[in-house]
Amino acid sequence: MSAPARASAVRAVPASPIAGTRHRPLPIPSVRLVGGPLAVWQQRNGEDTIPHCIEQLEVYGVLDNFRRLLGESDAEFRGLVFADSDLYKVIEAVAWEIARTRTRAFDSWLDDVIALVARVQEPSGYVDTWIQGVAPEKKFAALEWTHEMYVAGHLIQAAVALVRADGRTDLLDVARRLADLLVERFGPGGQDGICGHPEIETALVELYRLTGERAYLDLASRMIDLRGHGLLPVGSLGAHYFQDHRPVRESTAAVGHAVRQLYLNAGVTDVFLETGDDSLLRAMDAQWGSAHDRKMYLSGAFGSRHRDEAFGDDYELPSERAYAETCATVADLLWTWRMLLADGRAGAARYAETIEREVHNALAAAVDATGTRFFYANPLQLRRDHHSEENAPRERASWYACACCPPNIARTVAALSAYVATVADGALWLHQLADAEIDLPAELGTGTVRVITDYPADGRIEIRVEGDVVPGAELSVRIPGWSPRSTVVGPHGPRGRDGDGYARVPLEPGARYVLDLDLTPRLTTAHHRVDALRAAVAVERGPVVYCVEQADLDAPLDVDDLAVLPAPITVGERDTLVLTCRVINAAGGLYGPDTATDFGDEHTVTAIPFSTWGNRAPGPMRVWLPRAPR
Amino acid sequence: MSAPARASAVRAVPASPIAGTRHRPLPIPSVRLVGGPLAVWQQRNGEDTIPHCIEQLEVYGVLDNFRRLLGESDAEFRGLVFADSDLYKVIEAVAWEIARTRTRAFDSWLDDVIALVARVQEPSGYVDTWIQGVAPEKKFAALEWTHEMYVAGHLIQAAVALVRADGRTDLLDVARRLADLLVERFGPGGQDGICGHPEIETALVELYRLTGERAYLDLASRMIDLRGHGLLPVGSLGAHYFQDHRPVRESTAAVGHAVRQLYLNAGVTDVFLETGDDSLLRAMDAQWGSAHDRKMYLSGAFGSRHRDEAFGDDYELPSERAYAETCATVADLLWTWRMLLADGRAGAARYAETIEREVHNALAAAVDATGTRFFYANPLQLRRDHHSEENAPRERASWYACACCPPNIARTVAALSAYVATVADGALWLHQLADAEIDLPAELGTGTVRVITDYPADGRIEIRVEGDVVPGAELSVRIPGWSPRSTVVGPHGPRGRDGDGYARVPLEPGARYVLDLDLTPRLTTAHHRVDALRAAVAVERGPVVYCVEQADLDAPLDVDDLAVLPAPITVGERDTLVLTCRVINAAGGLYGPDTATDFGDEHTVTAIPFSTWGNRAPGPMRVWLPRAPR
Repeated sequence: MSAPARASAVRAVPASPIAGTRHRPLPIPSVRLVGGPLAVWQQRNGEDTIPHCIEQLEVYGVLDNFRRLLGESDAEFRGLVFADSDLYKVIEAVAWEIARTRTRAFDSWLDDVIALVARVQEPSGYVDTWIQGVAPEKKFAALEWTHEMYVAGHLIQAAVALVRADGRTDLLDVARRLADLLVERFGPGGQDGICGHPEIETALVELYRLTGERAYLDLASRMIDLRGHGLLPVGSLGAHYFQDHRPVRESTAAVGHAVRQLYLNAGVTDVFLETGDDSLLRAMDAQWGSAHDRKMYLSGAFGSRHRDEAFGDDYELPSERAYAETCATVADLLWTWRMLLADGRAGAARYAETIEREVHNALAAAVDATGTRFFYANPLQLRRDHHSEENAPRERASWYACACCPPNIARTVAALSAYVATVADGALWLHQLADAEIDLPAELGTGTVRVITDYPADGRIEIRVEGDVVPGAELSVRIPGWSPRSTVVGPHGPRGRDGDGYARVPLEPGARYVLDLDLTPRLTTAHHRVDALRAAVAVERGPVVYCVEQADLDAPLDVDDLAVLPAPITVGERDTLVLTCRVINAAGGLYGPDTATDFGDEHTVTAIPFSTWGNRAPGPMRVWLPRAPR
Repeated sequence: MSAPARASAVRAVPASPIAGTRHRPLPIPSVRLVGGPLAVWQQRNGEDTIPHCIEQLEVYGVLDNFRRLLGESDAEFRGLVFADSDLYKVIEAVAWEIARTRTRAFDSWLDDVIALVARVQEPSGYVDTWIQGVAPEKKFAALEWTHEMYVAGHLIQAAVALVRADGRTDLLDVARRLADLLVERFGPGGQDGICGHPEIETALVELYRLTGERAYLDLASRMIDLRGHGLLPVGSLGAHYFQDHRPVRESTAAVGHAVRQLYLNAGVTDVFLETGDDSLLRAMDAQWGSAHDRKMYLSGAFGSRHRDEAFGDDYELPSERAYAETCATVADLLWTWRMLLADGRAGAARYAETIEREVHNALAAAVDATGTRFFYANPLQLRRDHHSEENAPRERASWYACACCPPNIARTVAALSAYVATVADGALWLHQLADAEIDLPAELGTGTVRVITDYPADGRIEIRVEGDVVPGAELSVRIPGWSPRSTVVGPHGPRGRDGDGYARVPLEPGARYVLDLDLTPRLTTAHHRVDALRAAVAVERGPVVYCVEQADLDAPLDVDDLAVLPAPITVGERDTLVLTCRVINAAGGLYGPDTATDFGDEHTVTAIPFSTWGNRAPGPMRVWLPRAPR
């Protein structure tokens, strides 16, 4: 096989706007996570998770779905209608892994699978193995459920990533042919069509960014304009389910299937970033408030309902029935990053802190210590006799019949360094506090910013500036909301947090700055309208949410009978915390007279980071516990 | 058309065991609800609800589904696979209405629809319009979802009711032919088959009771023995969904689809009642504890989950996502009554009090003031911007695509007097305290017990014994658990509550007894493991659960910001209560530091019976409100 075509690798980062934006991302190769949990995770992702995903694509027949169309496999079609997207997400993960490490380990696999996709592609540009192999009569004829454009979107994103990461253009050729078909069929003057599962919108904008072909951006805009006018036949889950209940510009509440809403919002924000259409940003500002001020789990997860994998009402946030799909957190991370680039109303610090919460909690909890077992749903509580459900097993599974989540983790973790820093206003902005080495973008100099820290295990963050820097350049460091009085201390004294949540210091060669964050464990409560969390507390330390797992309790202590005393919490071994609790003695029956709760013996109880739960025998777990009176 | 065959009407009551049981039911005609809310409800049920149901059967094509098979309609099949069951439940409702009132108003309708069913019945005895008209190849070939035996069960129950209520045997002939087919095909030596939706079990036992044909009882037993051995192919909802995950005798927890579990339990208890198989009763005792001690909503409703209409885990009882299907309460009432007849472990008083809770709350709330609009799901909280979902609209609907609930209400309300009293141990047991006239069963005499009361609006219950009574006969009157010190005062002084929850007085001709119940409104709390109800209270008065509806609050008061003070609650106009509340002033964001709740101004707030909510403009409602500190 001849070597694939390669263009020069440029903007090796997801979501790289070409219109002028205040915040501009840095390419993945120039932001290297060196040590600490995120670097360890990326390493495991590259060595264990991505190879595991590649293996599962074979085990679950995803590649055979292509081969059978070429007469190279006798297998029946397997998986859901959007099974192809699993392959494309794994390709995207590989692309960012190449950007990060320059690995060549996946090249021959890429050669094979890209050739496979190219050979299955029809002369028209169409490629979708379920339609082609199972139901050709449904081609573009049942957009509400076929996921054809969703699948196309992931193909396009993978192709864009491969060009950006490695200059490799063979999948791009496939993607463009498919995108051109979509433009021809659904572009201006064509069929009014939108996909039941948004995703194509953000992909088309990315393809526009890479190619400069305006028709892709216009198609994304058109699909956003068309949504909310009842184009999709309504099934039993209602028009809210796929956000077709109201025009995008009038949709101020996050509703329906959480992943669909959040992917849609990423696409809408992408279109705003390239067109500057303020009416889109206004809707996204309202949506972001809805999702994050009233519908987000403490872990940075979304979706309160199992039935339709949907957002609940405002403040409907049950812990045990949190659906909290891994993909919804991935989608929100992608959207929230775009809101940061869009300079949305909530402000960069809030967006960055949300991404930090998501990465260290919901996303980290979705994968086990080996990198090969995954949660799809991420509840914040497991009761004793809870039985597994489809997509919501009691324990992490090595794969799912609906395998959207594992490859989504893989592509997100491989690209994590994309979300660490931006350049804006003549400054390097440090949004995520991780042990890292950052090459300055040309406009700020040719030097390097080295961040040295054990954060979030330790609150000390040292920043060294090395090399040549443009005079007047600054460094903006995010000071987290839970440590507001911390300062960045350097040659010119301490600098506190500005109103926007960042402390600013000169970006001086040779300078050494130290930020000491207050990692005192703290008790958190929820808004009084969250009925599920009334009179309950969660324990947080820095950005890390904790939980109590039955595995850490000696009989007869039961995690469901513990109440947390508002006493100082100490740090134990290996990131654990030690709480003081009292045992609640149960009153008689299920319902009874309004008598005072009977708080019994005091015990010390170990809490572990929520991200690490379920790595021992499966058993009860709680993030939120009742508050005991002092 | 010739007059239908009639047998003499005997045992005009559902669930009439023929094996010796301690408690024996009284026929519906001999227990007449005279005044008070239950009598009013029965009247409305007969005049408005049943005619409405009959009309909807035409509107939704249920009867056309039969006619098309005879070439008498060009309509396509409409409704779900079990649409026939709606007709059968309405027939059963009509039967009990005849038993209650001797009405002849429905006779010609009965003539027509019974003839229709008989003509559609195949020579084999088979009748199921979906299978016959849409998918004959599925006949008995996909028992996990076709509901064929569920539909057959409702046909049988309707037929049994018509004989018992009116001596009418034409539908019984149809039912027996169908039951005989089931025996032939699925009886001993036949196919191992059980239905995905239990219901046939209880119906077969009822048919055995009516006909004395042992084969029906044996088939019910066999189906119960076969369940839980993985006979049904498992779909995405798991084997728990239809209770095929574990053998019935080892199933101690109520799990899966709530209506299926509770109908199954009614059938299991029926088989115990006729066979005396203790291993069944032991399982039912455990199941009853699971369902009622850990999984019942305060309103007497069941099913915490929308996704699979299922029971949640122990103590998983969210108010806003309560699925609480109307049919689940009906099913539980049927089962709980059978547990009373079976002398189950929880005791007659507990069973009767549960039925009382269900009738006055969950069941009453399911139908509106006109008797023609219904809830399918019965949440205990509605949030402001909640949007309607399939089977869970914000407002009651006049009918449903899945119309199981409205006819289920109709047949239950028509038969309500069946659950008022029993005879046992030489005594008349008064389980439900309603204004009623009760003819003594022959073994106690030929007199009448007249109960005069405005209960539950008023706590005074007067009981007069008239006519001839067998010497030594007693009257056992249930003293509710919330008024334990009340006594029955009569000629021989006051009699208090025995350990079993009943007060006993002589059944003397001419005697007049008075029971004064304490209807002081009370605050109720839930077990500490019910996270959704932590630090919250509900208001109850007697058996009636109250709620606060936004419609009773003046702006800017919001039901979601109220906390109830533990102050005396007064009785207002028309069954309302007046509470004292404080307004909770919201802390900043969704999550924040563990600071004390800010309780603001005091207000008096009107509460209404939960059963009457949603009869004005739809809007927020809460049964449970946070508790304010004094």
